[in-house]
Amino acid sequence: MIEPVRFELSARDLPETWYNIAADLDYVAPVLSPATGKPVTRDEMTRTMPEALVDQELSREAEFEIPGEVRQFYARWRPAPLLRARGLEKVLDTPARIYFKYEGVAPTGSFKPNSAIPQAYYNKRAGRTGLIAETGAGQWGSAVAFAASLFGMDAKVFMVNVSFQQKPYRRALMETFGASCTPSPSMETEAGRAVLKENPDHPGSLGIAKSEALQVAFSDPRWGYTRGSALNHVCAHQTVIGQEALLQMEMAGDYPDIVVGCAGGGSNLAGLSFPFLRAQLHGGPKIRFIAAEPAACPSLTQGRIAYDYSDTAGLTSLTRTHTLGHQFVPPSVHAGGLRAHNIAPLVSRVVEEGLMEAVALRQRDCFEAGVLFARTEGIVPAPESTHAIRGAVNEAIRCREEGVGKTILFGLSGHGNFDLSAYDRYLSGSLADDSIDPGALEHGLESIPKLVNA
Amino acid sequence: MIEPVRFELSARDLPETWYNIAADLDYVAPVLSPATGKPVTRDEMTRTMPEALVDQELSREAEFEIPGEVRQFYARWRPAPLLRARGLEKVLDTPARIYFKYEGVAPTGSFKPNSAIPQAYYNKRAGRTGLIAETGAGQWGSAVAFAASLFGMDAKVFMVNVSFQQKPYRRALMETFGASCTPSPSMETEAGRAVLKENPDHPGSLGIAKSEALQVAFSDPRWGYTRGSALNHVCAHQTVIGQEALLQMEMAGDYPDIVVGCAGGGSNLAGLSFPFLRAQLHGGPKIRFIAAEPAACPSLTQGRIAYDYSDTAGLTSLTRTHTLGHQFVPPSVHAGGLRAHNIAPLVSRVVEEGLMEAVALRQRDCFEAGVLFARTEGIVPAPESTHAIRGAVNEAIRCREEGVGKTILFGLSGHGNFDLSAYDRYLSGSLADDSIDPGALEHGLESIPKLVNA
Repeated sequence: MIEPVRFELSARDLPETWYNIAADLDYVAPVLSPATGKPVTRDEMTRTMPEALVDQELSREAEFEIPGEVRQFYARWRPAPLLRARGLEKVLDTPARIYFKYEGVAPTGSFKPNSAIPQAYYNKRAGRTGLIAETGAGQWGSAVAFAASLFGMDAKVFMVNVSFQQKPYRRALMETFGASCTPSPSMETEAGRAVLKENPDHPGSLGIAKSEALQVAFSDPRWGYTRGSALNHVCAHQTVIGQEALLQMEMAGDYPDIVVGCAGGGSNLAGLSFPFLRAQLHGGPKIRFIAAEPAACPSLTQGRIAYDYSDTAGLTSLTRTHTLGHQFVPPSVHAGGLRAHNIAPLVSRVVEEGLMEAVALRQRDCFEAGVLFARTEGIVPAPESTHAIRGAVNEAIRCREEGVGKTILFGLSGHGNFDLSAYDRYLSGSLADDSIDPGALEHGLESIPKLVNA
Repeated sequence: MIEPVRFELSARDLPETWYNIAADLDYVAPVLSPATGKPVTRDEMTRTMPEALVDQELSREAEFEIPGEVRQFYARWRPAPLLRARGLEKVLDTPARIYFKYEGVAPTGSFKPNSAIPQAYYNKRAGRTGLIAETGAGQWGSAVAFAASLFGMDAKVFMVNVSFQQKPYRRALMETFGASCTPSPSMETEAGRAVLKENPDHPGSLGIAKSEALQVAFSDPRWGYTRGSALNHVCAHQTVIGQEALLQMEMAGDYPDIVVGCAGGGSNLAGLSFPFLRAQLHGGPKIRFIAAEPAACPSLTQGRIAYDYSDTAGLTSLTRTHTLGHQFVPPSVHAGGLRAHNIAPLVSRVVEEGLMEAVALRQRDCFEAGVLFARTEGIVPAPESTHAIRGAVNEAIRCREEGVGKTILFGLSGHGNFDLSAYDRYLSGSLADDSIDPGALEHGLESIPKLVNA
């Protein structure tokens, strides 16, 4: 007899709808236009977003139907497996039962295609022939490249120049999927040219890359601009993760006391936790939800709840969320992603309402947990995902100390096959631990705009 | 309604036995001792192999029971998915139905753990506390590192020095799993010291690394020497692939007319094809089995059937198989693995008996098919696996030309996440095509030993 370790659903169990938690929250703050300081209009939103996605973004309905074509593509790797981490439990000598939902089986190796595919679908239906994105480490860029390829669309990715130079394999991955990859700042856009005029050797930043991508999308209607995280509709798309996990926990004959996810832009955490939170809000068992964020970029634990821009230059709409300030620069030594100065407003709201806690974790502690996980479970986790592992391990150790056998579920948002240089640095002792310069934090917080009506 | 695209079995469907095709073949040539020229004795074999594996190696029984502990570890990722490549079918505009069995979901990303885990299990039961292996590109080394970690054993991997320098991420993967990785030639063994004395900058070779690993295993009984391919018991372990695929084709309501696998050492090809061949030999439908080998190292299409050594130095036992000669050196421009001068004797025998055909494929043609596959199916294949894809694509194109809707099954033996530099070279046009120097082929064939009794 084999002890159950992997809980697999069939295509029949694929979710038919995405869940929109905005339906279950008392308050969802409007998004403000940077031009007017007033709520953005549909017209403003449809400049870069298909109508169908605007509808989802503004909706307070609980469910959006997943189009058949999207479900058909999901079916290639979804439902994704949920596993019990028996090896990890054993080495921790904990009475806790630890489960993880594994998104690394997806094409490109992370949860990102869950939203890249519907975004490609809706953009194509809206008549766009190409997808445009900015990318740092390359996870969103490769998901968009893959999604575009599936729908026969072009893909153009502005990649932060320093990553473009340092991560040729991520670039090669995007190019293998057929995308064109442009180091940013580039001479292709006004924003890029302006930066290069000042500094021809500028290493680039996600904010600049975003400005370049947006300018191309504004100037040429063939291109649809895509979003990797933060927005309401992106969080909704990711709820396929948690909906499947609900069924799989039932298969396992268990239910989580604690759900842990890593928190950067917030959509992976939202995707895993919101369906469980929905159950709780409608009378189900109470769960401790834990957002595990990097100590290098601790928006939930050290940020303020305020209206702020999502890019460095202040070109985007203003959203009300936990923010470190749009000019906050996290220490460059941090190997994982999760380097967003603010977080998805829906996640922020859930934290504000006391439905979710947040914890800031240090880089070396996370890598230590990641290596332990690799050695006991056989999967090298993405550096981002090691934050969720560390969070889960901490809770499992507490269970051991208190002699309590809780059920812990965490999200393994992706594999680390493209991040072995960071593991190499960790193992050789040269991976720096994060520490935030208090000056950088102060500078960031000061950059939060003072809005009269916010 | 979702069109079926992925065929998933549950843990209940995990095979309970490994299949040993030696039971169904009329003749299996004995292995000869290099010292005596006579069949190796059990005593000679047990110097580096646990009794249980020697039993499997010499057995003519059809089935070996899979130990429960091994099945429990298999259950973490097995049964592995079988998918229908609908995207690839569409872009090829073929009436063929194309299926692939995907082993890239395994820890370390290839089929190798299927045998690394039982080898770890039997070595541990035989009292060994460590596993030793040689590795070139690093696939076997990382599988052994992972398996050792699962069983709480040490792992020591001799890695060809040039790969050690050029593939730091593969090394980092092994180290993440806790293995120690030594560039070969090294000062740790007599074989290594002898080479370094002649040439301190020797780039190393798989043959030298094998000699070093064997010397450590001979001199210290704590270490169990592991084999990544070629041997009968390794082929048997891999038959979990084909046994699952048989059930999955049934789920799909289909049955293959053609089965294609990539051929290097031969164990992946054996693992997929032998269970289908077993069915055929016992009255089932006739299948065309195709071994897709690299034109750079074409043992099945250009080698001779003869007794030969498996390493360059001529230290190993002699096996009767298709060989290019143990001193054959494939062109170094070939990016994929599959660079073995000879092949598993059981595969060789099946080809010799006319039960399987072989085809030699060129590197750029294979990468072309690999990129097409990535863009339509979303998985970047291992360079080795692109040979199977090319073989399948060629057959699917033939189906289109002849207007015949055949069913094609191929083995996707692993993902290419660690091989993006090769894709980068292919896409930029700098990946050389293979061509064998006729002199190298002649030199190789001349190195086949002339044995009186062979």
